[in-house]
Amino acid sequence: MSSNRAEFAFRVTARDQSTAARCGVLTTRSGDVQTPLFMPVATLASVKAVRPEEVRRLGFEMVLANAYHLWLRPGVEVVEGAGGLHRFMGWDGPVLTDSGGYQVMSLGGDVKITREGASFRSHHDGERVFLSPELSMEIQERLGADIVMTLDECLEYPVGRERVGESLELCHDWAARCRDAHRRADQALFGIVQGGMYGDLREESARAISRIGFDGYGLGGFSVGEPREFTLELVELTLSFLPGGAPRYLMGVGDPVGVAESVALGVDMFDSAFPTRIARNGTAIITGGRINLRNSRFSNDYASLDDSCECYACSGFTRAYVRHLVMSREILGFHLLTIHNLHQLSRLMAELREAIAAGCLGDLLGRLRANRCE
Amino acid sequence: MSSNRAEFAFRVTARDQSTAARCGVLTTRSGDVQTPLFMPVATLASVKAVRPEEVRRLGFEMVLANAYHLWLRPGVEVVEGAGGLHRFMGWDGPVLTDSGGYQVMSLGGDVKITREGASFRSHHDGERVFLSPELSMEIQERLGADIVMTLDECLEYPVGRERVGESLELCHDWAARCRDAHRRADQALFGIVQGGMYGDLREESARAISRIGFDGYGLGGFSVGEPREFTLELVELTLSFLPGGAPRYLMGVGDPVGVAESVALGVDMFDSAFPTRIARNGTAIITGGRINLRNSRFSNDYASLDDSCECYACSGFTRAYVRHLVMSREILGFHLLTIHNLHQLSRLMAELREAIAAGCLGDLLGRLRANRCE
Repeated sequence: MSSNRAEFAFRVTARDQSTAARCGVLTTRSGDVQTPLFMPVATLASVKAVRPEEVRRLGFEMVLANAYHLWLRPGVEVVEGAGGLHRFMGWDGPVLTDSGGYQVMSLGGDVKITREGASFRSHHDGERVFLSPELSMEIQERLGADIVMTLDECLEYPVGRERVGESLELCHDWAARCRDAHRRADQALFGIVQGGMYGDLREESARAISRIGFDGYGLGGFSVGEPREFTLELVELTLSFLPGGAPRYLMGVGDPVGVAESVALGVDMFDSAFPTRIARNGTAIITGGRINLRNSRFSNDYASLDDSCECYACSGFTRAYVRHLVMSREILGFHLLTIHNLHQLSRLMAELREAIAAGCLGDLLGRLRANRCE
Repeated sequence: MSSNRAEFAFRVTARDQSTAARCGVLTTRSGDVQTPLFMPVATLASVKAVRPEEVRRLGFEMVLANAYHLWLRPGVEVVEGAGGLHRFMGWDGPVLTDSGGYQVMSLGGDVKITREGASFRSHHDGERVFLSPELSMEIQERLGADIVMTLDECLEYPVGRERVGESLELCHDWAARCRDAHRRADQALFGIVQGGMYGDLREESARAISRIGFDGYGLGGFSVGEPREFTLELVELTLSFLPGGAPRYLMGVGDPVGVAESVALGVDMFDSAFPTRIARNGTAIITGGRINLRNSRFSNDYASLDDSCECYACSGFTRAYVRHLVMSREILGFHLLTIHNLHQLSRLMAELREAIAAGCLGDLLGRLRANRCE
């Protein structure tokens, strides 16, 4: 089912033979992007430690920014005054903004959720602020992303069934209000399925959100600490209740094996701070796992981060040097690790798309599982 | 007077008509560089927040690293194991290492200076370490820079005449010992003139250091808080007692007008953390002065950092965006400001070289002084 929004469309272009994976093209007003795709996270309108042109050069076509963060700082009017998010951050490709439901939970202080919306204290200055579905739509429309997300309530993990059930009612109500409040015809609006770790509630939510009808569907509330098997099982179940022709976006998952397994289930889009965040912690994604450069065994290791990698960091710098930079908190160290980790994700997405197009995703998945050493 | 070291030479190629400024070519084993030159500071083997290839692209031909810092972290053996400083840091152009006299003063704890050397506590772990002229030479030879500096004692400002006089004796003794201890024929060795703010002591030091004989001459102990007029007056005086054919290096001066005024006096080389350090403080060098982006008046200022600048930061990003990044402590903000400030220095050096070659440095100096608004 393609979109009812002007300028937004999703077209499946290839399907894998032995899995539910598919390739597609997402058309937005800022251009087309290939799926499955991974969106680097530009929370505050910058992919941390990387120039926008480098994000593009690394092969990414779309980034995610966070409406909650940008609303609080620098403020919607500053971004709007620049001519919108794309011009503000120097990124002319598509942008998706997350609404901030997750950030209200993880960053807001003294959070009070009512039917009306979420009241909480700003993590910057402690000032009490109020976010409603309608305000979230207004903020995101003014920021000007190509795809915007409904406001939802995110729950911690683990959480009891009853609490999840109550929350779902609220989420579905908010989703419908977002749908009603959304005005910009050139922006796509995605709904978000919740339901915690309960299969029947996931089903209920997927049905309810689909019934409201959105341009695409986010799978929220995952990657909150649950075992990976739960995630995959519930993702598979949820997808079976979502319209097959719309893009499906698994929010917050960004580890290579998790992404690959989810692509096999039919997920089209991902975002995660994982590759960039672990970079700033001194960690490099390598074939089959990760290494933390803070470990002293790398002090005089003159190999590249990953000998099968062709990124900028791996083509001129050693583990010993990157370790030295990380230990000295030199910005270049975080830059090199970010470039490397993003390259790993970008290469993975390209391999996944190629494997699906060739109908042999199973082989690639087998190799990834076999290589996994952690 | 050209060098007595293999592979090192300095040749004056042009002189200004109305000032003592000159252009030259410094030949090192890692290639030729044009003077007057400014060396960005790569204290820990990285110009902070910038890739080495970008340093080159910005027009810089030589960088400075700090032997004191690299000795303590990651350790000489790690750099040596990588094949030397150039390969360690991915910079194939010339490198100069400072010996660390200044860092002993500014960073060392519980410093005890004797004839033998400097004993102090490491600023990393408080461990007591000992640095002698001979050890400084060994460290710098093993690090493998193209130009190395003698070990000297740096004094705070202001300091009494008697104390400076005593220190000079030590400095000259250490300089002679460095000369004797230095072995690598492919590395140039520069002596350092001290003498505080006392003209007669500067003269004495210049004569003593020249008598020992070095490949080039550093002017140390400036930019320690003294009025700029003192610096210029003493630099001029000092230069008159140094061999005219050798390169002269004013250590630690990097503000645009200070650099230009010193070039007019006949200085060939500069280094300073100034442009990169103020970048990390949110400050941009602009025509005639500087601006600090933390100032709220830039929140919705959609102009570029400097409208006459053609750097990467100025060609795609606004003051409002850079301010947002700085306020959010986003690495990209420090990167953009560093790129911009280094570009300003690089452009200045190119303009100075052109003006000297055209014999009209006076005009450029006049414009710089007239534009100065702080």
